[in-house]
Amino acid sequence: MLALPRGFSWGGARCGLKNRRNDVGVLLSDRPAILAGALTTNQVRAACVDLCRTRLDLGVARAVVVNSGNANCCTGEQGARDAARTAFLAAEALGLEPDDVAVSSTGVIGHLLDMSKLERGVRMAVHALGDDPGPFKEAILTTDLVEKEAGARIEGTSAVVYGVAKGSGMIAPNMATMLVYIATDADAEGLDLPTMVRRLADRTFNRMSVDTDTSTNDTLLVMANGASGERPPAGVLEAALHDVMLSLAKQVARDGEGATKLVEVTVAGGGDPLKVARAIADSPLVKTAMFGCDPNWGRVMMAAGKAGVPFRAADARLELGASGEWFTLFEDGGPAAFDVHAVSAALKADRVEILLTLGDGPRETVYTCDLGYGYVRINAEYHT
Amino acid sequence: MLALPRGFSWGGARCGLKNRRNDVGVLLSDRPAILAGALTTNQVRAACVDLCRTRLDLGVARAVVVNSGNANCCTGEQGARDAARTAFLAAEALGLEPDDVAVSSTGVIGHLLDMSKLERGVRMAVHALGDDPGPFKEAILTTDLVEKEAGARIEGTSAVVYGVAKGSGMIAPNMATMLVYIATDADAEGLDLPTMVRRLADRTFNRMSVDTDTSTNDTLLVMANGASGERPPAGVLEAALHDVMLSLAKQVARDGEGATKLVEVTVAGGGDPLKVARAIADSPLVKTAMFGCDPNWGRVMMAAGKAGVPFRAADARLELGASGEWFTLFEDGGPAAFDVHAVSAALKADRVEILLTLGDGPRETVYTCDLGYGYVRINAEYHT
Repeated sequence: MLALPRGFSWGGARCGLKNRRNDVGVLLSDRPAILAGALTTNQVRAACVDLCRTRLDLGVARAVVVNSGNANCCTGEQGARDAARTAFLAAEALGLEPDDVAVSSTGVIGHLLDMSKLERGVRMAVHALGDDPGPFKEAILTTDLVEKEAGARIEGTSAVVYGVAKGSGMIAPNMATMLVYIATDADAEGLDLPTMVRRLADRTFNRMSVDTDTSTNDTLLVMANGASGERPPAGVLEAALHDVMLSLAKQVARDGEGATKLVEVTVAGGGDPLKVARAIADSPLVKTAMFGCDPNWGRVMMAAGKAGVPFRAADARLELGASGEWFTLFEDGGPAAFDVHAVSAALKADRVEILLTLGDGPRETVYTCDLGYGYVRINAEYHT
Repeated sequence: MLALPRGFSWGGARCGLKNRRNDVGVLLSDRPAILAGALTTNQVRAACVDLCRTRLDLGVARAVVVNSGNANCCTGEQGARDAARTAFLAAEALGLEPDDVAVSSTGVIGHLLDMSKLERGVRMAVHALGDDPGPFKEAILTTDLVEKEAGARIEGTSAVVYGVAKGSGMIAPNMATMLVYIATDADAEGLDLPTMVRRLADRTFNRMSVDTDTSTNDTLLVMANGASGERPPAGVLEAALHDVMLSLAKQVARDGEGATKLVEVTVAGGGDPLKVARAIADSPLVKTAMFGCDPNWGRVMMAAGKAGVPFRAADARLELGASGEWFTLFEDGGPAAFDVHAVSAALKADRVEILLTLGDGPRETVYTCDLGYGYVRINAEYHT
């Protein structure tokens, strides 16, 4: 059991927006919390994303209300009214002002929210508020197979960071259909939390890809309520936030739709290692090879080469790490000698690392997953 | 039967580089032909691509030799020697100089060519040269399900354009594992064929995507040998070449690995309609929805929105054309009323059109296919 930040309570309820599981969640701070975050960069945004933008501009909040099963996106002016009304309903039930409440939605695009169901759900979730984040964690899921949470102690203090996430498909840099809520009882007064959170998002959630698609609803919210009375130095808080955000990013990638493994792609050196790493991580041919446990390193070289970053293949070295072993697959401009069956067996692991060295210089890592039948099944059968 | 250009002969043979089908092809012009074309932009290039670059620089050729089953890529200096030797072997068998011969390879990356097999194959293919392009068409295929050919008469002349193509996966703008050979008996002297062909490639093959991956071996070669004695105006030749290239591009997209349909994505208006069309065509979520015959228009809007091109969703209109009918799915900022079952039934068609109107202004079209189980099966089981 991860340590939870003081002064937060969590609620979840099932109102029928999706099947069988909780679909409305409420997160409440017992006092005003500093609010920071990041939102989707998609031009097509859900109404709740625009609402969250105004809350982030305020920089302070008391609560978040979130529903799954319906994204409330491409729903026009009625959608905007429904997002505002959701904040109003939660505020009313919590004894707050609507401006104190951020709103998120996730699910199918292009359908109006069933507000009578949601109204009931919000009331039930508020009624169910308590110390256990479990019902809230369940309420934010869509096609996720597992719940995602991470925690970290803030060194030298009694304060902690705790976060939960959902995200399974439509996941690509600049967020994803990814919802992330992080709570800390550290006092972040005077620490420029918004800048810190954006910097950390660039190093974690924005380096993760499931399918190159970018959701209309991505939302990351961090609430720091100071309930511990501890005011850590900026670097110490940032380190704890980083650990939580990176762990959640990896968990989301690992639970990509239909995925059987986490694939960590690292590129070292070259003019733009991050761009090359993204090209490899986004390649359907690399991802299907990982699904098939096939050490088809030619596809990795192909994907690296299409990134538009100049390099000489003859100078590159490609290694694969899996099941505790490292294998060199390509070096000195040609195939390295390796045991195909041994590498293939190692690739059955739950986590695989691809390391492409283009030269001296910094290394950058991107997190993705393999591409298998499950992705097609989930997305060809998830009907409107 | 399409009309064939005079002065060309075609040969194919099976030497064991791949299973069951022809794997070596030779195309010969009975006189020097003007050579133009385009090659992959991937930083990781097969040896034969570098060789073709020198032949395109010469601007004239007599023959092309191509093998399938092995891409001769990431094979270092030995690979370069093998590509040069392939040109030498074909030249020797044809009584030409190596500089007269262009070379292509397609297949698995990172394995040295079996030159003893290929030597035999080249001799057999030369021996088999004749009027029927059939054995050559077969020799260039890899995971293709169907052979691809297209022809056009050059208006006002007796000359024709005829082309064949292969391409199934690793297909994305800036070519693909796509090999295209186009022959015409028009006299292109003084017409700047290289510029014309590059312009046409931008409007056809570079607007086609199967899986966003870009091959190391993409090659388009156009040979104009003048055997008809006809010298058409530039615009007339360009029109015929365009028809052949566009037809081949659509055939390649339709035969994408695991594809069940051709998807034509057109975006009208907006700041950069081509960029938005590419984002839609590349979206795995759009492609799986097309596979599932699911009118999940929210995914199209999502994909359009992630292109990085500003537009207002409220101004957009989304229509779908299939089975001879058009359906409006999204307009005036919200879902349009449509019969989900009727649209779903229409989507079972072999060809589907997506039309997104962002405003007044030019329209741009990109060609792709759906994404189904077959793509995963082919690419997870195509072992090194």
